[in-house]
Amino acid sequence: MSTHPLDPIFHPRTVALFGVPSKSEAWGAQFHRALVDSGYDKSRMFLINPKADEIDGLPCYHSLTEVPDTVDHVISLVPARVVPELVDQCVAKGVRSLHLFTAGLAETGDPEMAKVERDAIAKLRAAGIRTIGPNCLGLYVPASGMTFSGEFPMESGNVMLISQSGANAGEIVRSLTPRGVRFSKAVSFGNGADLKAHDFFDYAAADPDTEVVVSYLEGVSHGRELFEALKRCAAVKPTIILKGGLSGAGARAASSHTGSLAGSRAVFEAACRQSGAIRVDSMEELQDLTVAIATSARTVGGRRVLLFGGPGGFAVLSSDIIAGQELELPETPAKAKQELREFIPVAGTSVNNPIDANARDREQMQKMFHILCDSGAYDVVFSTSLGSDQGGGPGRGRGRRGPTDEAETRPTPEELEAEHERVREGARILANLQGEIGIPILYVQRGGFGDGANRQASAAYAAGIGTFPSVARAAHTVRQLIEWRARREGLQTIF
Amino acid sequence: MSTHPLDPIFHPRTVALFGVPSKSEAWGAQFHRALVDSGYDKSRMFLINPKADEIDGLPCYHSLTEVPDTVDHVISLVPARVVPELVDQCVAKGVRSLHLFTAGLAETGDPEMAKVERDAIAKLRAAGIRTIGPNCLGLYVPASGMTFSGEFPMESGNVMLISQSGANAGEIVRSLTPRGVRFSKAVSFGNGADLKAHDFFDYAAADPDTEVVVSYLEGVSHGRELFEALKRCAAVKPTIILKGGLSGAGARAASSHTGSLAGSRAVFEAACRQSGAIRVDSMEELQDLTVAIATSARTVGGRRVLLFGGPGGFAVLSSDIIAGQELELPETPAKAKQELREFIPVAGTSVNNPIDANARDREQMQKMFHILCDSGAYDVVFSTSLGSDQGGGPGRGRGRRGPTDEAETRPTPEELEAEHERVREGARILANLQGEIGIPILYVQRGGFGDGANRQASAAYAAGIGTFPSVARAAHTVRQLIEWRARREGLQTIF
Repeated sequence: MSTHPLDPIFHPRTVALFGVPSKSEAWGAQFHRALVDSGYDKSRMFLINPKADEIDGLPCYHSLTEVPDTVDHVISLVPARVVPELVDQCVAKGVRSLHLFTAGLAETGDPEMAKVERDAIAKLRAAGIRTIGPNCLGLYVPASGMTFSGEFPMESGNVMLISQSGANAGEIVRSLTPRGVRFSKAVSFGNGADLKAHDFFDYAAADPDTEVVVSYLEGVSHGRELFEALKRCAAVKPTIILKGGLSGAGARAASSHTGSLAGSRAVFEAACRQSGAIRVDSMEELQDLTVAIATSARTVGGRRVLLFGGPGGFAVLSSDIIAGQELELPETPAKAKQELREFIPVAGTSVNNPIDANARDREQMQKMFHILCDSGAYDVVFSTSLGSDQGGGPGRGRGRRGPTDEAETRPTPEELEAEHERVREGARILANLQGEIGIPILYVQRGGFGDGANRQASAAYAAGIGTFPSVARAAHTVRQLIEWRARREGLQTIF
Repeated sequence: MSTHPLDPIFHPRTVALFGVPSKSEAWGAQFHRALVDSGYDKSRMFLINPKADEIDGLPCYHSLTEVPDTVDHVISLVPARVVPELVDQCVAKGVRSLHLFTAGLAETGDPEMAKVERDAIAKLRAAGIRTIGPNCLGLYVPASGMTFSGEFPMESGNVMLISQSGANAGEIVRSLTPRGVRFSKAVSFGNGADLKAHDFFDYAAADPDTEVVVSYLEGVSHGRELFEALKRCAAVKPTIILKGGLSGAGARAASSHTGSLAGSRAVFEAACRQSGAIRVDSMEELQDLTVAIATSARTVGGRRVLLFGGPGGFAVLSSDIIAGQELELPETPAKAKQELREFIPVAGTSVNNPIDANARDREQMQKMFHILCDSGAYDVVFSTSLGSDQGGGPGRGRGRRGPTDEAETRPTPEELEAEHERVREGARILANLQGEIGIPILYVQRGGFGDGANRQASAAYAAGIGTFPSVARAAHTVRQLIEWRARREGLQTIF
């Protein structure tokens, strides 16, 4: 646990949901359902609704002050006009923190609603209560059982997510979870009326549970504070930033969304460069860099790629893609080619990088990796095989499922567990191999979506190997890492 | 049916698999399994293996000449050294066409194997037998039951695929099938020792079952013929081309793969420009342009996009992406804004393009589309809703499944069919709406992979609406269509 003053906000002992709707399909009802679905201890969760005595089988209090326990954290689900009443109750109850899911305040552009927001924050601050929001999804902290979606995993990880937008926070968690990433905590802070991006960067820098920081920002209302906090954070931890609203159309949308002034692209790029943060331009880049930074991929030391895995047409297009990212695909050294040809048949294969040859078994795969990489010709390997399968040509129909497989028989739990273990074993073998050859391996999935692909990615991640959904994204990520490292020259080394 | 001389090759009455291995996991065994799995009439399929009397319950002949019926098409699964013997049997039997899956010939770079290939083709041609290959996967023709993968759908469509690489042909079919696309036929022709790209383009131009032509090429061994055939084909049908081997590394891989000389980028680009073909640079572009050309998206008449569907953070990033593709996101006209605000609440929404407001029901969605589009401010709509669902905010947990849902109860066939019908109904409503507003709608899926997403895409496609996996890909596709149409000025209009 951190001794940072914001730390208690992430670890409330008790939570009250203020204005929880009695109909489960209503907007706002998802919060208590998410907590219940995720196993939150119901004795530490209090529902507040002036008109209900019970919702979904849980007792309901008519006001915050009726709750027969201390309340650490309040989630507000009420409309904007009820906020003054909510604030009074929070002050009277002496809560520690408030998350305003409530929207319709400053971001509407209405001066009257902006004043409601300002007055509320002033009153809360005076009472020592910190606020997340308004207009956001708040906290996801697996270690303390806090979540805003019943779909998020409740295992903790080492990545902290700081996002103004709740939707984008959700998308980041949902897209990184199947790739193996787990979070120390995530916060969506919306309008940032009280707690702002710079507060969370300072917290992340100090948080012992966080090793990688990833963020989505729209506004830069306190530019100087943000830049200073970013410098402090990026000096000690890899810090990835995606900034929305950098185009004219995007800035207009950001203003409607979180009432943010988006700021100029040039200033933002300079802030990232000077702080050593990793600037990304899209959700895909954000996801890929997070995976890369959290796995062996971050150690990539040069541009010379070995692509291990065919088939032929894929190898041709992949070569074009890798060249397009200004990476190199050095030919297999003559001696290595000769050694490979001793056991790789000629027909339908290539022993010249990219390697298009299915290994017969794991021993042969290990042998191939050693022959190729011990030559010193390569800095990084892109492998389309996880070690648990040897690829397989198109049409071979092994392991790949059709577009709709609902009619298929489902495997038994035992078969499924045996399959999981086979995948985990393959990932461990590849990780060992990586240790032996001394250069990072990136696992590239070919057209893989669905449970099987997700299991492979999770197993690879657990073994320290990052998984990428295409050669294009693996190559682009390696290029970004190399360019970022070059830009960081002169700053402190963080890995 | 076409009267083109190559047409019979696509419609064999009988097929022999020459050298079919007796072990079902062996390389080559996938062909008869694919045919059997796809319901090919076993009485028209003959297995040839000199050492077996029966394989997988099917009778096996020791040579082609033993087959007690005429043989139209032969699929060769034998090693390269057996090719001369195979050729003699084909000539003796008087077959019509041969598909050489067999690899290890000219593409190895070995002059002796190149001679085997040359001599075989000369002998076959002299006997009036046309050859597909060697070193390829051959034919996929749903109407005649031909396939090289048991996973491909056996419904016919209007897209013909011409691919040198079998792996890439497989990837194209597998990636486009869940998006609704169906094929009139696909051919993978590998080294192209006899039948070449230009032969297939000429066939496609004449084929009444083909309305859209899509191709993956590596080599340009007969550049002039290819260019002339491309001109003839692109003059009458939209013709999409992806060319592998345009980088140095890619050209090297192409040479190992299909023994192809890849040719220069400049010459290839000029050939596409002059012929009016649609040049694409990646598999993703190829897939997206195929979907666009086969749906209403191809009618897009300008750069002014209406993005319909939040939530806020998604709208902000999408705006940046759309601007990055040099498209416009015109503000909602003042009158339309006012009309929308009459029934869209202020909190948590935006009625300014991008529209971030969930419609209450279909009637409201139709009303919103009319208010927005009847203003004349837009050329194209990107909708994140298919009409069958109204989106739903993050964390609402409606319809979106977690990363692993194996433990969930499976819906009954009746529930599934009701869900399918709901999706189809939504797609039809959106298509009707499209007819009313008079501009194309592109359906953009947010993070959707899996059976549910595929059902939506197929239903949309059936209603004439293209589905795209992200705003980035929809926007890039629209930009490419507009730029291609500008480049085609002066050529015949094909749609």
